Amino acid sequence: MALRAALRNKCGLSGLLSQWSSCSSHGRVCVSPVLVSQQRNNSTSPKIKVDVDQSSGVAVMHMQSPPVNSLSLDFLTEFCISVEKLEMDKSCRGLIITSSQPKVFSAGLDIMEMYGKSPERCGEFWRAVQEMWLKMYSSNMVTIAAINGSSPAGGCLMSLTCDYRIMADNPRYSIGLNETQLGIVAPFWFKDTMTNTVGHRTTEIALELGLLYSPAEALKIGLVDQLVPEDQVLTTATQTMTKWLAIPDHARQITKSMMRKPIIDKLTSNREADIQNFVSFITKDSIQKSLRMYLEMLKKRKG
Amino acid sequence: MALRAALRNKCGLSGLLSQWSSCSSHGRVCVSPVLVSQQRNNSTSPKIKVDVDQSSGVAVMHMQSPPVNSLSLDFLTEFCISVEKLEMDKSCRGLIITSSQPKVFSAGLDIMEMYGKSPERCGEFWRAVQEMWLKMYSSNMVTIAAINGSSPAGGCLMSLTCDYRIMADNPRYSIGLNETQLGIVAPFWFKDTMTNTVGHRTTEIALELGLLYSPAEALKIGLVDQLVPEDQVLTTATQTMTKWLAIPDHARQITKSMMRKPIIDKLTSNREADIQNFVSFITKDSIQKSLRMYLEMLKKRKG
Amino acid sequence: MALRAALRNKCGLSGLLSQWSSCSSHGRVCVSPVLVSQQRNNSTSPKIKVDVDQSSGVAVMHMQSPPVNSLSLDFLTEFCISVEKLEMDKSCRGLIITSSQPKVFSAGLDIMEMYGKSPERCGEFWRAVQEMWLKMYSSNMVTIAAINGSSPAGGCLMSLTCDYRIMADNPRYSIGLNETQLGIVAPFWFKDTMTNTVGHRTTEIALELGLLYSPAEALKIGLVDQLVPEDQVLTTATQTMTKWLAIPDHARQITKSMMRKPIIDKLTSNREADIQNFVSFITKDSIQKSLRMYLEMLKKRKG
Repeated sequence: MALRAALRNKCGLSGLLSQWSSCSSHGRVCVSPVLVSQQRNNSTSPKIKVDVDQSSGVAVMHMQSPPVNSLSLDFLTEFCISVEKLEMDKSCRGLIITSSQPKVFSAGLDIMEMYGKSPERCGEFWRAVQEMWLKMYSSNMVTIAAINGSSPAGGCLMSLTCDYRIMADNPRYSIGLNETQLGIVAPFWFKDTMTNTVGHRTTEIALELGLLYSPAEALKIGLVDQLVPEDQVLTTATQTMTKWLAIPDHARQITKSMMRKPIIDKLTSNREADIQNFVSFITKDSIQKSLRMYLEMLKKRKG
Repeated sequence: MALRAALRNKCGLSGLLSQWSSCSSHGRVCVSPVLVSQQRNNSTSPKIKVDVDQSSGVAVMHMQSPPVNSLSLDFLTEFCISVEKLEMDKSCRGLIITSSQPKVFSAGLDIMEMYGKSPERCGEFWRAVQEMWLKMYSSNMVTIAAINGSSPAGGCLMSLTCDYRIMADNPRYSIGLNETQLGIVAPFWFKDTMTNTVGHRTTEIALELGLLYSPAEALKIGLVDQLVPEDQVLTTATQTMTKWLAIPDHARQITKSMMRKPIIDKLTSNREADIQNFVSFITKDSIQKSLRMYLEMLKKRKG
Repeated sequence: MALRAALRNKCGLSGLLSQWSSCSSHGRVCVSPVLVSQQRNNSTSPKIKVDVDQSSGVAVMHMQSPPVNSLSLDFLTEFCISVEKLEMDKSCRGLIITSSQPKVFSAGLDIMEMYGKSPERCGEFWRAVQEMWLKMYSSNMVTIAAINGSSPAGGCLMSLTCDYRIMADNPRYSIGLNETQLGIVAPFWFKDTMTNTVGHRTTEIALELGLLYSPAEALKIGLVDQLVPEDQVLTTATQTMTKWLAIPDHARQITKSMMRKPIIDKLTSNREADIQNFVSFITKDSIQKSLRMYLEMLKKRKG
């Protein structure tokens, strides 16, 4: 629980991560944007629970990886396998993604996958992040993000892959691609996904400043499609799904592909280069040093 | 008048077209979006009346093909010839397009051009649809759509080719590219035109759900530029034209071309493939069966 | 002072420039959009004053070329040298651009650089306009436009190159790319910059009609980011700069480059063709004749 303790204390991180504190300065719940160090969970309990309603053909994926659904290699692997299974199940036409953890949808990429790891391992991790995006952004299913908590960085990206985003109207939550705040950069396909959603200028300013938006702000710029009271996020997602499933699948799928194919092709044809790029960046001494300082700071607060 | 009768009855179509009824569920006038079966009119009376005001250099094209200005091969041929004549007339600098039919601007592509026709004929029809788009989207004239009625599918596309869109502020009218509602897909150049007008995300959601917008909604997303009371649509179009004609033609034309050329070039260089694509889709047994069911249903209602 | 006198008189220009008067018809201060004929200033006094705050690393460039900071070859050369110096100064991280002239930020390109000049000289001038855009749009510094007056045509372009735009909330000021109003055309990279800022459709209508927007309208379409009372433009720019400089430079710079590189590359690889295009247009007899009429009209008003 070190992380949450640190967050309660609104710690200012030093070095690379020195901008961190600014995002918690408005009383929002900032659950470790971008990088998350969570307690290792050696149990084999699933990180994702999937409920399929056979009558409606709608699956709900509950992310339940404490404390903040950080995107570790294990989590992403399980996530991708779950999506693939549903994709191949002809009776499943819709997928709702939500969180079982309090106050957070997903806090983004797991810092432990990037610190002190071999280049090979880092590459494996990044390939899994790409895979999650590719699977979700090109899914034949109708995908709806039921965003019942904060959703920074990788969590925001996951939301952006969906066809529709419903967020809890709780001003303590935030959403955005805040990578630059920590000194790192959202890669081109994060940027492309954001641009397809909110346009070029909003993306430019959001990514350069690493902005985290309140639900109201996110709605205004089109980063999410709808706000509802926190206890109605999932039911609204289910009702919305019904509307989407009223459209003939085949026509909807071709249309979706037509809209999204250009940027999917861009990553597909640059996948290895993108991995190399990530690995060479994250294994830099300066970046590793910053991550170490961040982790030590977290340990101290835990003590 | 079968169609209008059917519409009054808010008929639910089965099979491929089963989503149809949903678009008339809010009390809007849904004049057979996408596909229209109209009474054959064997007279040679013109489907389009063109009035040119020599003093102002402005032409008004009144679409007068009962009952709903559906885009048949004959209609499109007459339309394209009219536009080409005006284009070559140096004294004509502006074109306003409007409807002489009550409650509808244009109901879109004529279903009879797609049912039981030879591939050759289908291809000829699709080439005419392309031609209408190419001529209008690249016109050197200032083009204004005076949208005095519902304008689904192909009717919406025709509006989108214009430089400016003025719509009657009647909540019973609707406008949008609703193809997916009927199980068919708006091709890439419909999609590109929509994206150039309302942006990527709005287009994605509009095309995937086949949304028809009320005038107020259409104004909000930028699908139309202005709403006026129904009896002022044409006069407002004329006044607006004066403003546009105050700009030196040459500079405006070069600017227009610069904005639109990329997607015009895309169709021009993929025209045959796009025709093949349409023909192979529309001549599929499953699609022909759906069209037959739709037509039989219309006949029954007529009886 | 001929120009301002002419403007006070809301002169209607004839021929090519006949649309000019329309832009001053709403009581706005229209300081010679696009083309400016200013009194020759033979002194060697600098046209730009640069103040660098060493503690914050922020430079302020005051444009002080009477009467309206028109973009002459001399001005652009001095401007580009100033920017380059700051760019190479590692201690300088931010740049604010503002005007020392009353009521105008910059009135755009200097007409005298285009009238009666040799093709070589015209080409040299256009290369300087390109250079200004390239340097600013790709600057590693945080760039903020403190727009304390009207900013038509080239002045608007200069503002659009910045990361953020703060404008004086004075309804007598205007901003926009109004080239078509004078019968000339904003080239593709003006268009691309505008599209990146306000989207495709808004750019289409703005450029085709050569629209000048009031501050309130400019804010609404996203042409500027913020309005403040006139006496707070510079202080707000300084405060905003602090927020931008809180982001690690390296991450922000990579992100900025990722957003802007596509259209920068487009000009870079078409630079000579773009110069040829400008020179062949501006040296046309018809254009030169229009410029002469415009200048004679200005002289008459001066007398």
